[in-house]
Parts: sequence; C-alpha cells; structure tokens
Amino acid sequence: MKAIWCEKGKLKLVELPRPGRKKGEALIRVLYAGICNTDLEIIRGYMNFQGILGHEFVGIVEKGSPQWQGKRVVGEINLACGRCEYCKKGLSRHCPHREVLGILKKPGAFAEYLTLPEKNLHLVPNSISDLEAVFIEPLSASLRILDQLKIKKQEKVLILGDGKLAQLIARLLRLKTKNLLVAGRHQEKLALLSRLGIPTILEKELTNLPKQSFELVIEASGNPAGLKTALELCKPLGNIVLKSTYAKKPKIDLSLAVVNEIKIIGSRCGDFARAIPLLEKKKIPVKDLISGIYPLEAYQRAFKKAWERKSLKVILKCQS
Amino acid sequence: MKAIWCEKGKLKLVELPRPGRKKGEALIRVLYAGICNTDLEIIRGYMNFQGILGHEFVGIVEKGSPQWQGKRVVGEINLACGRCEYCKKGLSRHCPHREVLGILKKPGAFAEYLTLPEKNLHLVPNSISDLEAVFIEPLSASLRILDQLKIKKQEKVLILGDGKLAQLIARLLRLKTKNLLVAGRHQEKLALLSRLGIPTILEKELTNLPKQSFELVIEASGNPAGLKTALELCKPLGNIVLKSTYAKKPKIDLSLAVVNEIKIIGSRCGDFARAIPLLEKKKIPVKDLISGIYPLEAYQRAFKKAWERKSLKVILKCQS
Repeated sequence: MKAIWCEKGKLKLVELPRPGRKKGEALIRVLYAGICNTDLEIIRGYMNFQGILGHEFVGIVEKGSPQWQGKRVVGEINLACGRCEYCKKGLSRHCPHREVLGILKKPGAFAEYLTLPEKNLHLVPNSISDLEAVFIEPLSASLRILDQLKIKKQEKVLILGDGKLAQLIARLLRLKTKNLLVAGRHQEKLALLSRLGIPTILEKELTNLPKQSFELVIEASGNPAGLKTALELCKPLGNIVLKSTYAKKPKIDLSLAVVNEIKIIGSRCGDFARAIPLLEKKKIPVKDLISGIYPLEAYQRAFKKAWERKSLKVILKCQS
Repeated sequence: MKAIWCEKGKLKLVELPRPGRKKGEALIRVLYAGICNTDLEIIRGYMNFQGILGHEFVGIVEKGSPQWQGKRVVGEINLACGRCEYCKKGLSRHCPHREVLGILKKPGAFAEYLTLPEKNLHLVPNSISDLEAVFIEPLSASLRILDQLKIKKQEKVLILGDGKLAQLIARLLRLKTKNLLVAGRHQEKLALLSRLGIPTILEKELTNLPKQSFELVIEASGNPAGLKTALELCKPLGNIVLKSTYAKKPKIDLSLAVVNEIKIIGSRCGDFARAIPLLEKKKIPVKDLISGIYPLEAYQRAFKKAWERKSLKVILKCQS
C-alpha cells in the first residue's frame, strides 16, 4: 500500500505491505485523512515520531468482525492497554502504555490502510459525509473542554487562534456562551466565523481591550506566545485552557498565574460519541474549513498547502 | 521613624515621618517582620516596587479605634477597595484596585510603624509568641492550597522546595496526606522535616523516581526550572500548584501539561483566620525555621543572611 512516511522532519511516499491485524483489530481502508497542526509539529520535531503520520480519518472496515465488516467508521486515536490503573478508571486516553495513531508508536492514517482495535471504532451515520467525518476527531478534542469546565451562558470567553482547531472550538462554544470572542491573525479566517455570527478581533488589536477581561481563555493559536496573552487577558481566578502543543519552548512568566490565581488546564482528546451527534444534527458547520483535498501521491503539495498560514484543513484522499 | 527603603534593587535605612492614618486605618508599632522570598524577588526587580518592603509582621496597635487600641495584631496584606465586583463577591484579595503591604503601592513592615485598615487586622492569641506570629502570613498562604484543592488521605503529594514557604506547606500537608515527599537542595533544611517524620529526597535524586508518580506537585522551590520537574513527575490529570513568583522568565515546554491534561494552579494569599488556630494549637512548628533575628539598623547583615542559600526565615526586630 501507499503511505506517507515521516522521518527526521522529512516526508516521503513509500510502498509498504498492508498492516497486519492484531487481536481485536480491524483493517480499515482509509478514505480521507485530515492534516492536523500536531502533524506539522511532529514534522518539526515534536514527539520524535518516525513512521506513518495522521490521526484524523474516515474509512471502511475491510477486514473485521461481522459487526464491523464493511462499515464506514472513524476511530479513537488512543490504543490503551485496558489493564492499568487509568484504563480501569475509564481514563484510557491517559493509559501510560498507550500507542497513539500516527503520533506514538502506532502507524497512522496517511496511508491506504490502517489498523485499529474495534473498540476504538465509531460508526459514521449516513447523514455525515466522508469529508465531514474527518472532523470528528478534532471536534472531539474541542468537546474535551466541556468535560473539563462548565461554561456559563454569560461567561466571557476568548479564543486565541483562528486556525483549524480554534475554528471548531469557536463553533462549539458559541452554543454555550453568548459572550464569545475569537482573536486571530487572518482576516479571511476570522471572516468565516463572522459569517456564523461569532464576534472576532485581530490579534494585534487585543492590546486595546482592558486586561483581565475574560473568565475563560482558550489558547489554540498554536503560537507559543499565546499563553502570555492569555495570562494578561484572563481575569483573576479565571481559567486558561491550553489546546496547542508545539515543538518550541517559549519563555513564559507565570507570575501572573500565581498572583491572579489562574488555573491553566491542559486539554487533549475527547469523546467521539459526543462529537458525532453534533455533526449529525448539523450544529457545527465544517465544510467551509476545507482548504484543499489532495491524493496521497500529491502529499508534497498537500503539506505545502497545510503549512501556508492562510490554510485551514487540508485533506488527503487516501484511495486512488 | 526608621525604615528600610527599596529602590532599584538597593536597600537603605531611612528616617521617615510616621505614616498618617487614613480613615479606618490603625497605626501599628511593628515588633517583628519576616523577610520573604517575594521581598528578595522584589529586590531583583519583581513588581517594580519602590518604597518600604515587608509584609509579614506582628505589632501593637498604637493608634486605632478602642476595639483595637493596644492589641497585639497581625494583618492581611491586601488592601481592597470594598466596592468592585471582586470585593462584593468576597474575593477582595483579587480586588483590581488593591494595594498590597510592602509589595504594591502600600508602604510595608520593615519599619518601626505601619498603617493598615482595621478590617485587615487579626488579634494574636497569647499562646502565640511574637516570633511565631510572624509566620501567620506565610502559613495563610500555604493554607490557600487547601481552599483550592481537596487532598485525599492517600494522595501522593510532592513538594518541590525546602525553603521557608515549602517548609510551612510541608508541615501543613502532612496533616492531610500520608503520602507526602519533599524534595530540596539542602540536606540541613530537609533534616528539619525528617525530624518531624516527613519523608524527604534530594532534588538531584528525583530523576531516580518513576515519572508521573504524584497526583499533586507543589512548586515552591523558588526556582523557575521547578515547573519542568513538576510536569514530569505529575500524573496525567493531576494538579500542579504554583507557589513561587520570580523575576526570571523560564523557558518552559508546556506540551506535557496538554498531553497529560494537567492543571497548573496559581496560588497566592490565604485566610489568616485559618492559620491562627493552627499555630495556637501548636499543629505547625515554626521556631526551627528562624535563621536569625536582626535589628532594623543591621538590615544589611539581615538581608545578607536572607540571601544565603542555607538560610530559612530571617526576622527583623523593628523596635530598638
């Protein structure tokens, strides 16, 4: 099969045998896979991963138990041991022995085929298109914020970032609070949110806002300096959710967190089962977030596009 | 009156008029005042403060309303407006208009006299000595952790630091959990804790512990690199409490906070009313933390002592 291999910051198209199924796993023919910022950070050196990238996908079960055979699926990306302290508490996304699809040990979705444990799979309802289904994984990650925090209807919430993940978070949180503001660097990306009635501001204009204005700041800018801005704009006793991971180590003065007793909350993956109904009911528009669709063979153009500052979601078509 | 004046990182002994009382304030004759790490960080440039330093003190009300006249008191350090959103919610320690004794606008305790609003005062019971009373402020700051987090009896807690504040936090948290460990750089400081039956470890030996071992890590080392260690040793979904403020800006990789969904919680001042009974009932020993007592005139020797790595609490005797 064809696959995109990442090694020491370089990508190449390789021909590999189809992956073998372990016990409990399904072989999945990947239809589409999305390029995430985490993929770009991995290319920059984050996680020191070597292998097939990609963790956002939709596919068809090619080989699996009768229950799954031929079904159109998406899959949770953490492969847990099922036996440790975390797994037993239902916290398998934090299993210390886990593999993570396209991020940690487990070959990812930028390929014609992948394998995943069947317990990780979720059926994609017919009303969700293939391209929409690619957004289930990042939408779940956005939903994780709502597991971690209760957001009140009047709560003043600022989202830093106008990229792929920030866009999804904004589309989600506007269902929760009437006082949402999204700050970004790209007028055209912010315009997509304005069209949905979400207030936006250019990042450079944030300095015009009074400090300590927001009860909650979501740092999803992918920019290591975002936390500094978040600390300045977060109210005392407020919360900052960190959604970005990056290879760079920023210089950060955390004194403001101490003095203002701010909580900084790391937030990663969420529950697919909660994301699917939101897409099914068309509560979260996603199609306007697609910046391009490329066949696997055109991975160089696809990644070039994904690196462009003005791009949002770039999708690989994994079958020719 | 004599006072220690801080300006651009330099201290000097000055002769000033006694401060005038504003409405609602008492004039307090300062008996003793403790030197805190925050004072040392202010001298290094933190907060850009200019004036009389010092915020840990015990004194006698020299002029005040009949209720307070002649009483031995300690005082909460935040002077709030009483009218804003925070004050109305009982969160006056976060009043954006506040002054802070010896830290922000308000002249501090390294002087023969200071003024404070009477509503900030707490009576010191007879069973607490003058020198013990100096620890009420930092002990309150330690207690703040217990407002912010519930600590379970079996919870594995690591305290990073063996300095003044870390010592108090350790002495407090041993009343809460059976699984406490304190990591420090100074064998003699750790020995004080060992004598109380608290397990300790040299910081450099922390690398021998398995990663992700602690549900709660308190960063009170005063060392900007402490957070890195905390992130490595904190379990997924665990908490890190930040107690240190410093002038330096460390380079920090917060990816571990995101991946492990760790909460980093800033923690500052606490409630004196909860600290006083703990000292009164002798639950928290403090006298072994005193490294020296110096008259105001010997401030240079006092601060020299306070800067020494092996020192703990240095106290100024403010009356000659």
